[in-house]
Amino acid sequence: MVLEKINSPKDVKALTLAEMQELAAEMNHKVVEKTAVHGGHVGSNLGISELTVALHYVFNSPIDKFIWDVSHQTYPHKMLTGRKIGFEPGHYDDVMPYTNPHESAHDFFNVGHTSTSVANAVGLAKARDLAGESGNVVAIIGDGSLSGGLALEALNNAAQLHSNLIIIVNDNEMSIDKNYGGLYENLRELRATNGAANNNLFKAFGLDYRYLEAGNDIAALIKLFEDARDVARPTVLHIHTQKGHGWQPAIDEKRRFHWTVNFDPETGAALATTGKRGWSNVITDYLSAAVDAGEKLLAINAAIPGIFGLEKFYPKYPENYWDAGIAEQFTLTFGGAAATVSGVRPIIFHNSTFIQRAYDQLMHDISMNEEPAIVVVAGISINSSDASHQGSFGTGWLSTVPNFVYLAPTNETEFVAMMNWAVAQHEKPVMINLPGHGVASSVLSALTDFSQPAYDIVTSGRDVALLGLGGFFDQARKVADELAKSGISATLINPLFVRELDKTTLSALTETHAVIATFEDNTLDGGFGQKVASFLGNTDAKILNFGALTEFSDEVPVKELYEKYHLTPELAAADILKALRG
Amino acid sequence: MVLEKINSPKDVKALTLAEMQELAAEMNHKVVEKTAVHGGHVGSNLGISELTVALHYVFNSPIDKFIWDVSHQTYPHKMLTGRKIGFEPGHYDDVMPYTNPHESAHDFFNVGHTSTSVANAVGLAKARDLAGESGNVVAIIGDGSLSGGLALEALNNAAQLHSNLIIIVNDNEMSIDKNYGGLYENLRELRATNGAANNNLFKAFGLDYRYLEAGNDIAALIKLFEDARDVARPTVLHIHTQKGHGWQPAIDEKRRFHWTVNFDPETGAALATTGKRGWSNVITDYLSAAVDAGEKLLAINAAIPGIFGLEKFYPKYPENYWDAGIAEQFTLTFGGAAATVSGVRPIIFHNSTFIQRAYDQLMHDISMNEEPAIVVVAGISINSSDASHQGSFGTGWLSTVPNFVYLAPTNETEFVAMMNWAVAQHEKPVMINLPGHGVASSVLSALTDFSQPAYDIVTSGRDVALLGLGGFFDQARKVADELAKSGISATLINPLFVRELDKTTLSALTETHAVIATFEDNTLDGGFGQKVASFLGNTDAKILNFGALTEFSDEVPVKELYEKYHLTPELAAADILKALRG
Repeated sequence: MVLEKINSPKDVKALTLAEMQELAAEMNHKVVEKTAVHGGHVGSNLGISELTVALHYVFNSPIDKFIWDVSHQTYPHKMLTGRKIGFEPGHYDDVMPYTNPHESAHDFFNVGHTSTSVANAVGLAKARDLAGESGNVVAIIGDGSLSGGLALEALNNAAQLHSNLIIIVNDNEMSIDKNYGGLYENLRELRATNGAANNNLFKAFGLDYRYLEAGNDIAALIKLFEDARDVARPTVLHIHTQKGHGWQPAIDEKRRFHWTVNFDPETGAALATTGKRGWSNVITDYLSAAVDAGEKLLAINAAIPGIFGLEKFYPKYPENYWDAGIAEQFTLTFGGAAATVSGVRPIIFHNSTFIQRAYDQLMHDISMNEEPAIVVVAGISINSSDASHQGSFGTGWLSTVPNFVYLAPTNETEFVAMMNWAVAQHEKPVMINLPGHGVASSVLSALTDFSQPAYDIVTSGRDVALLGLGGFFDQARKVADELAKSGISATLINPLFVRELDKTTLSALTETHAVIATFEDNTLDGGFGQKVASFLGNTDAKILNFGALTEFSDEVPVKELYEKYHLTPELAAADILKALRG
Repeated sequence: MVLEKINSPKDVKALTLAEMQELAAEMNHKVVEKTAVHGGHVGSNLGISELTVALHYVFNSPIDKFIWDVSHQTYPHKMLTGRKIGFEPGHYDDVMPYTNPHESAHDFFNVGHTSTSVANAVGLAKARDLAGESGNVVAIIGDGSLSGGLALEALNNAAQLHSNLIIIVNDNEMSIDKNYGGLYENLRELRATNGAANNNLFKAFGLDYRYLEAGNDIAALIKLFEDARDVARPTVLHIHTQKGHGWQPAIDEKRRFHWTVNFDPETGAALATTGKRGWSNVITDYLSAAVDAGEKLLAINAAIPGIFGLEKFYPKYPENYWDAGIAEQFTLTFGGAAATVSGVRPIIFHNSTFIQRAYDQLMHDISMNEEPAIVVVAGISINSSDASHQGSFGTGWLSTVPNFVYLAPTNETEFVAMMNWAVAQHEKPVMINLPGHGVASSVLSALTDFSQPAYDIVTSGRDVALLGLGGFFDQARKVADELAKSGISATLINPLFVRELDKTTLSALTETHAVIATFEDNTLDGGFGQKVASFLGNTDAKILNFGALTEFSDEVPVKELYEKYHLTPELAAADILKALRG
């Protein structure tokens, strides 16, 4: 094993070409071995092992700085920079899935989203010049990430730098899913002409440009990098690699092996799944039935159709689907405008951490214009995700946006009722959270008109009122059960509405309840509970808000988070009893 | 006067070429006449009058839809679509400064920010196709707006449309200030080659392309538009116009006449200003002194240097300045990365409504990475702005971002103390609000270390505590004066910290004060007061939060807003007295 000899990048520099080729193959094997058991990003890591070896052979990390876009393709980089233990059985969780400066001096940023690498690299390069330092700054960005506005802004800004910057465009002809947009036709032309096509997106942004077809050939990569090292102006190296290179199942099924749960390491076959109904089934069923019934729906998303079951929808209804590539901003401005055309009903699907890219477009282009678009947000939940995919911030900042009817169903039936109402009305923009805990819950609101906030009182009690928002209704119910052990009968409420308060119900609650507690599956700042606390601040009721603190957590077990934030039934009930008796 | 005959676009269609030329000249005269008295956008409107006449001559608005980027260049469009009254003395406020669907069926979106037109136009075009309708969709976007990520995402997405879309790139070689970035070199090449340059940004995005040099020549414009009308695929018309065309002062001083207060209508000379010290003076002085003292500052902004006095800073310190063009996202990722290089201190300057474009970059690229960048935000204030420049939302959503030390000075001395601390430390990202009411105030905190939240108790009283954040400290003081008339002596507090609570001080307040009231010059949702209400919800104190509701207001007088939100000293004091006695 060549990898056995590699403990830092300097060991790579001592290898022969044959050893480097062997090293790349060994690393590919490790990638498959680990992800088959553990899940993770497969194709992108397989495709980039040769490029990573050549980078570490030619450049001098960390004096020369590699900035990896998304950084889901850094398993080989991690293996070569002192972290190969994380790819040995029993140690798979010893390294993070993305780059992290806390983990290694060879990593510069904690990332996990696309399209940031060029902006980060321009920043490091400009600061290097201002500080009078030296060294190459090298951004490595996939073709999929180029569709994001931040990446394009950064390409435009890169030309302002009159010093070293190398932008490696790792073109594997693939985003998470297939690529969408005109620039991909330009990349295709450039590949077809060995980089000589007349039109060239990168040159149009004022950047120097070189093309390499043989992107999985270590010798060719070394030559290219040696030529480009220490260039004194921003330069794009467009390199054609093969996603999944070195392992046929990942070449054959590029989408499935972008990121996958565990699989058979020999054949790549998927292991048995639970078959449990999820939100993607709910959405596919809803959209198909609505279009079949004659609705002019337009389902919109930004490069992650699989999360919402849209990959099952669009082959049958191509006219009713728009994938914008990784361009969250565009989806909202575009979808909002489409909503102004009579009869057309756009539904925009986003993950909580990705829609962060589009706050302004929610504010100005949809809210200020009161366009009746429908936005469905997944992933708002306190969970054990890595920091960059921590969706629990969503509710707080999303409910600082006016005009939206912002809804939180607790289960599939409520979600469908909300969608039916949202599609039928043409007055207001609507936002709907998908609960983070599956499609079923123990409550069923009969509400079918969501034009005015109206909380659902599920159980009437006394002394204590518990309001459990969306995915946390069941958590509130558990707290009620816990309080019952102390003889407290709680009123249990399903608020349904995130942003607008049902002031009548809230005011009435204070007349008979000494303590009012809110529960939400998200960070508290800006969220549901703080609005309730503010509204009821001038009453005698004690208000307790249960939710997460406004902080990042990185793969922290949910149990720990629940204990820290007093979200377990026992801890929450104890706080409530104390307030009741205090 | 030709304009006298024009009451709708169909009247334009009846004109001869000579009449149309006369009409454009008349409209230019109206633009200068109005803005000289009223202030407004000058150069962009002068440059586009011929193009606007030609558009209305060839196309059939509103069946054919014109989507104006920013829409600060729509004075001629408004004059031709039934709104010329708004350009007559005495009626200058009868029309809004931007497009507004409530004002006219010829306007489709309420805008005011850049870079949205192409995304809006693609949305209208896709919905048109889905609804089975017809008609041209025409976006008109200035060269400056092309640097925004949303515009670039939209150019990439436009190529996915296989039907009519016309994108007019109105190239006047100018943004608000000069243009920054590599794409402007490409525009220059295209202008120099009459559109024939080898590299072509628009073709690289997969779009058809035509160039017109004579962008202020009505006959040439008509021919171009007649050729392009009803094209069945996305097409860019790159048109070279002259900013300020038809009026020499605006040609000579393009930056000053982008937007200006009133001026001499004959010579264009500026009228006497107050000479009052403002935040731009404070910032210029601070930055210059710090760089002179050896600090490696990097002042960063997105195309609005004039707001912060940076246009006086950068000519002397070009290495310490970066203008990203209209690319807010880039500024934060770039600035955050620069902050990781030892010794370099990036300070990023934004307006409240523009930094909305960069929520994700604040969250992930600065906050999650804990990069010690400094962000200065202007314009967070409840004022009579148009809806699209309503900065009062800022504090609420900005304080949903973790890790930042988020500060609110009340005056220049506190601002400088905060900047000194922020620049000297290298541990945390720092955000500072600029008060909306000038550089002076009646209070002076002696705090010089802002690493831990510590409220400044300015006046100690009893029964009632008033916390007035930043620019609203003086408002809280006025309320205290009003309460004094009823014999109530209030404790008056300058909180200084927006996001992190001084829990010790707050808890102590509840022991001796029955009512605690917060005052903030922004919308309440997510802001300072709701956090206080949540923290103190479990105490016997009554909490009142004073601030704006989460809603858009469009040029509503401040007095009306203050009355609606109970922010006048009289109304606020009455609410507090009621809570105290209730």
